[in-house]
Amino acid sequence: MLVDMKHSFRNDYGRFAHPRILEAIAKYGEELNDPYGLDIHSEKAANLLRKTFGVPEASVHFFVGGTVTNMVFLSSILKDYEAVICCDSGHIAVHETGAIESSGHKILTCPNLNGKIVPEEIERLIKAHTDEHMVLPRVVYLSDSTESGTIYTKEELSRIRKYCDVYGLYLFLDGARLGVALTSKQNDLKPEDLGHYCDAFYVGGGKNGLGIGEALLIVNPSLQKNFRYHIKNKGAMLAKGYLLGIEFEEGFKDGLYWELAKTANQRAEEVIAVLKEKGFDPAPSPTNQVFCAFPREIARKIVKEFGCEVWSDRGEEIVLRFVTSYATNDDDIAALRAFL
Amino acid sequence: MLVDMKHSFRNDYGRFAHPRILEAIAKYGEELNDPYGLDIHSEKAANLLRKTFGVPEASVHFFVGGTVTNMVFLSSILKDYEAVICCDSGHIAVHETGAIESSGHKILTCPNLNGKIVPEEIERLIKAHTDEHMVLPRVVYLSDSTESGTIYTKEELSRIRKYCDVYGLYLFLDGARLGVALTSKQNDLKPEDLGHYCDAFYVGGGKNGLGIGEALLIVNPSLQKNFRYHIKNKGAMLAKGYLLGIEFEEGFKDGLYWELAKTANQRAEEVIAVLKEKGFDPAPSPTNQVFCAFPREIARKIVKEFGCEVWSDRGEEIVLRFVTSYATNDDDIAALRAFL
Amino acid sequence: MLVDMKHSFRNDYGRFAHPRILEAIAKYGEELNDPYGLDIHSEKAANLLRKTFGVPEASVHFFVGGTVTNMVFLSSILKDYEAVICCDSGHIAVHETGAIESSGHKILTCPNLNGKIVPEEIERLIKAHTDEHMVLPRVVYLSDSTESGTIYTKEELSRIRKYCDVYGLYLFLDGARLGVALTSKQNDLKPEDLGHYCDAFYVGGGKNGLGIGEALLIVNPSLQKNFRYHIKNKGAMLAKGYLLGIEFEEGFKDGLYWELAKTANQRAEEVIAVLKEKGFDPAPSPTNQVFCAFPREIARKIVKEFGCEVWSDRGEEIVLRFVTSYATNDDDIAALRAFL
Amino acid sequence: MLVDMKHSFRNDYGRFAHPRILEAIAKYGEELNDPYGLDIHSEKAANLLRKTFGVPEASVHFFVGGTVTNMVFLSSILKDYEAVICCDSGHIAVHETGAIESSGHKILTCPNLNGKIVPEEIERLIKAHTDEHMVLPRVVYLSDSTESGTIYTKEELSRIRKYCDVYGLYLFLDGARLGVALTSKQNDLKPEDLGHYCDAFYVGGGKNGLGIGEALLIVNPSLQKNFRYHIKNKGAMLAKGYLLGIEFEEGFKDGLYWELAKTANQRAEEVIAVLKEKGFDPAPSPTNQVFCAFPREIARKIVKEFGCEVWSDRGEEIVLRFVTSYATNDDDIAALRAFL
Repeated sequence: MLVDMKHSFRNDYGRFAHPRILEAIAKYGEELNDPYGLDIHSEKAANLLRKTFGVPEASVHFFVGGTVTNMVFLSSILKDYEAVICCDSGHIAVHETGAIESSGHKILTCPNLNGKIVPEEIERLIKAHTDEHMVLPRVVYLSDSTESGTIYTKEELSRIRKYCDVYGLYLFLDGARLGVALTSKQNDLKPEDLGHYCDAFYVGGGKNGLGIGEALLIVNPSLQKNFRYHIKNKGAMLAKGYLLGIEFEEGFKDGLYWELAKTANQRAEEVIAVLKEKGFDPAPSPTNQVFCAFPREIARKIVKEFGCEVWSDRGEEIVLRFVTSYATNDDDIAALRAFL
Repeated sequence: MLVDMKHSFRNDYGRFAHPRILEAIAKYGEELNDPYGLDIHSEKAANLLRKTFGVPEASVHFFVGGTVTNMVFLSSILKDYEAVICCDSGHIAVHETGAIESSGHKILTCPNLNGKIVPEEIERLIKAHTDEHMVLPRVVYLSDSTESGTIYTKEELSRIRKYCDVYGLYLFLDGARLGVALTSKQNDLKPEDLGHYCDAFYVGGGKNGLGIGEALLIVNPSLQKNFRYHIKNKGAMLAKGYLLGIEFEEGFKDGLYWELAKTANQRAEEVIAVLKEKGFDPAPSPTNQVFCAFPREIARKIVKEFGCEVWSDRGEEIVLRFVTSYATNDDDIAALRAFL
Repeated sequence: MLVDMKHSFRNDYGRFAHPRILEAIAKYGEELNDPYGLDIHSEKAANLLRKTFGVPEASVHFFVGGTVTNMVFLSSILKDYEAVICCDSGHIAVHETGAIESSGHKILTCPNLNGKIVPEEIERLIKAHTDEHMVLPRVVYLSDSTESGTIYTKEELSRIRKYCDVYGLYLFLDGARLGVALTSKQNDLKPEDLGHYCDAFYVGGGKNGLGIGEALLIVNPSLQKNFRYHIKNKGAMLAKGYLLGIEFEEGFKDGLYWELAKTANQRAEEVIAVLKEKGFDPAPSPTNQVFCAFPREIARKIVKEFGCEVWSDRGEEIVLRFVTSYATNDDDIAALRAFL
Repeated sequence: MLVDMKHSFRNDYGRFAHPRILEAIAKYGEELNDPYGLDIHSEKAANLLRKTFGVPEASVHFFVGGTVTNMVFLSSILKDYEAVICCDSGHIAVHETGAIESSGHKILTCPNLNGKIVPEEIERLIKAHTDEHMVLPRVVYLSDSTESGTIYTKEELSRIRKYCDVYGLYLFLDGARLGVALTSKQNDLKPEDLGHYCDAFYVGGGKNGLGIGEALLIVNPSLQKNFRYHIKNKGAMLAKGYLLGIEFEEGFKDGLYWELAKTANQRAEEVIAVLKEKGFDPAPSPTNQVFCAFPREIARKIVKEFGCEVWSDRGEEIVLRFVTSYATNDDDIAALRAFL
């Protein structure tokens, strides 16, 4: 039970929300609001997001989680015979229990490189799908940061976009951890670049202290029509949508969102420093996920003490994942140092 | 914009949550909890619900809304060729944008009587579906209270159950407004009766002041297996499921849930009294929805002032719906009286 | 077992094919042909159909049966939240075991009048579906002849088309029994009218002596794109599609199709005459289905002798359906006369 | 256009049916039969199949093609969150345009070895799917012969079965080309072995001269219930199902099916001999598909003359596929020899 754990590096969604978000919820918690996302807070939040990402014409919709955002959006743009391209470590390919397929669509996977899709693989898949006996690839899905915490460079995103243009594909970016990606020291993407390169993308709130919620920005006008029907059809329209509006309004009105992400990244650097200091060899990480191999017995103890997830088992060694968040504090870092 | 409305009778989900729920969220908002509904609060809430409804072996799952609960549960128990029986005013039949069909299943409707399913209609539908060229009815869906605020008697529910037993059907009760149903002065169903008659049912939190969330109790053990896989497959597993646990724990630990529902019902009686006092003729209502016909012009003004929904348009007269909630207060009632 | 029945009025698909079709199959049965409907016979058949129905730009696709044609076409044009309007006796609504719903779409039904959709009902359904909490009606489905053997007049079809134009709906006509409809003495629709009024329609071969197969003509160019992908995606692409091409080529190269249908209608008239002659009161029928009420005991005997389907049970009386076909012969009629 | 091609090695379904099948169709073509597969021919064919494969209790259903058989059967046994395991060259994974996914299910692929699934890969996939955030593997799909013409040994099938038993998986065998597999000189599987090892399998008629049709044998009683509902729900119930019954009755009443398959295999050996004789190096092939690399220019000419499919393009060389069938004759072989 995490509830009994003093210091956790298990994940970045173990706490409901940052105090400022909690205050906003308390403040507006008894206010009367229009339901189904048509409220004033959602509108303000949408405008803040449109401005932040430089997409004044984007339609903005809020969801309660990443899987449902991926499923609702992808199923809304794909015909039954159309498929989504994704690298083999992609969240939709592995960790959504077949949600995309359950909504009727095939995922075409290609080998990942450090958790990222290799632009040339898009072309390879396109060329391998030649006629109506095979699915028709129609959209590229990627996430930033990726499942393994890596991030896309502007150059990479630009090249992926080029392939999309050549082959008539949409580009969809899963930003469940977009905050830590765009505030990473190694990042060279500006928020506006997302609006420029992507047909749609979402901004994750849940893994960055905003409570629950992801904000989907549909940039391509041809994908916006009747989208609210589709949300409802998939059971994803929240009656009290204003909750999500309140959270994102608070998160984006003065940059809190980016501050929380920066903190998470900074804490990851501290974890890396501690691990190195203690003689371990963590993989370099641009964001808030740190991967490090440990001898079995030590790994076992770390898991017990800090809740780290086992990422892979190499026999003698076990790779653990440390996840930091806005809530990781000096005590947590000190406890890790002391423990090691 | 409801946010600017002083006194609203529009719906029972215009405010996020009752102050005690807000306090609980604030209290636990930074606590570390296990994700995906496997946390201590969800466990406590589940146990409170099991005890309340007399179903110690039920599996309990929390969802963020009614449509998604209906869709996830029904699609989990139906084979592709199996159908759900529902009266023609049922929420799944009319107001879920085809969510059940989108998950692959036909809804067989029969005429409603005061918003309720007529037990004999179940038999009629069964007898009309005789072979593999037609769907196979497999489950009866009903809601208590109904779309029009009416409630089922124990006698009615018992007779529906009997038909289910005879024809091998499951019985599923949508309790989005279960609080006002079971606390209605006209109600003769005990919470335990639901556990006794239904294979599954859910307890609505969102329309009764608990914030967001519905608690599904799967009573029939044969329907419980691998249900969490199904939740995730439909995109309905909330990462921060503990939010729902916190809300229901607070709502059921000392009867707050029932108190809020009673208040809503009491306020509906006051609305009826005011309407009668002013010479109108509201329909009798056992719960928190009051329907009353008005001349067009008056109706128009009421809608503008109190946000009432137009229920039906009879030409010269318009039927409006007044919905009360735990948050309806003396001022609201006084304002209505003054206005009329 | 029908195989042991001397004279049957059970249905119009109890025999595989008319001798000329059998000869064509035998003739081309060992010929080498391109698979998947891309063969020379399918091309010739498609051209004959385009010419017959005055739709030179229509795309033509052959299917093995009516249900699969309905399901593949409707699911290809509907988005997940869009619905098909159909009268309550429509084949897709009753006799396809939820195939349309299984492909993800809701069927909105309205009361039939003599098996036909009432044009005004389309408007009523449109007006009842006002926002994203309800499905969006997108296509009207009807069949000619209908389930009860009635046919649409040009006036009726034209009015339905008008409603479709006003509300942005597609019009799709199920012609599983189109032959008997268009050759009915009461018919005033020309083949070209179908091409004019419908966005798509199909021409039934199976119930008119052509072996197996239905020919779908997609008239509206916006619905033609990538349709072969959709066929394959639904498992409906026949490897040996040339079989269907051979059948329809033979059926339409010199009017055999219409001759067979005329014969079926003529035989129905003879059945009516016999029934009247024997003092019964068959309903008027423009096509090859004759409905007539009989006392229970007589009905029972007729069913045993001629395989008639029980259409409805009115207690003392039972309504039987007599179906004639191109293969109904003088002996069958004489046997019926003798038996009665 | 194959219709103009004198000698074709393109595929094994370019001709409708062997003369004996054509005769049977002609013979019974005007006979009155019960529809929807409930006829006497389908019953006789089913009994012949049950006897042939030693599965007296199997339920037998006929379909018009392989993709629809795979889709209908797999979707009938899988819950929404359950997946099918298949090697990456499997027909369902590559050549069915997402039909399995369109019916709602994920395909988990593993690397093939000579077109076959490696038993250990099943265990690897099972172990990689550990909780409800990933799909639950539930059935193993394989085909015999495979996409590349290879066949399973008894030892291999037995080991796969063992993994299925250990992990609670069903085993489903796609026998679109089962005839050539079981009559291959290298084959050591008896028909009874299929009944023994598989929960279900199908016997392909279309690629072995029987006209159209595949016969599905569901051996596992727990998978048989209400299967006809499922067939109809997927649009796959053929009204004139007796056509398929007639074909399979003729094919299995005296061993014609096996004779045709043997001929196809024998002709493949002749093709191999010719290729070797002419200095080429065809891959060894146990069944009716022969793969051989040629210089580009020669390959181009062979394709033009014999319709061979390009299997892969290695730059300087192109691998072509030669498919033989019961209809390949001495002239075809002689023409190939002469041409080379």
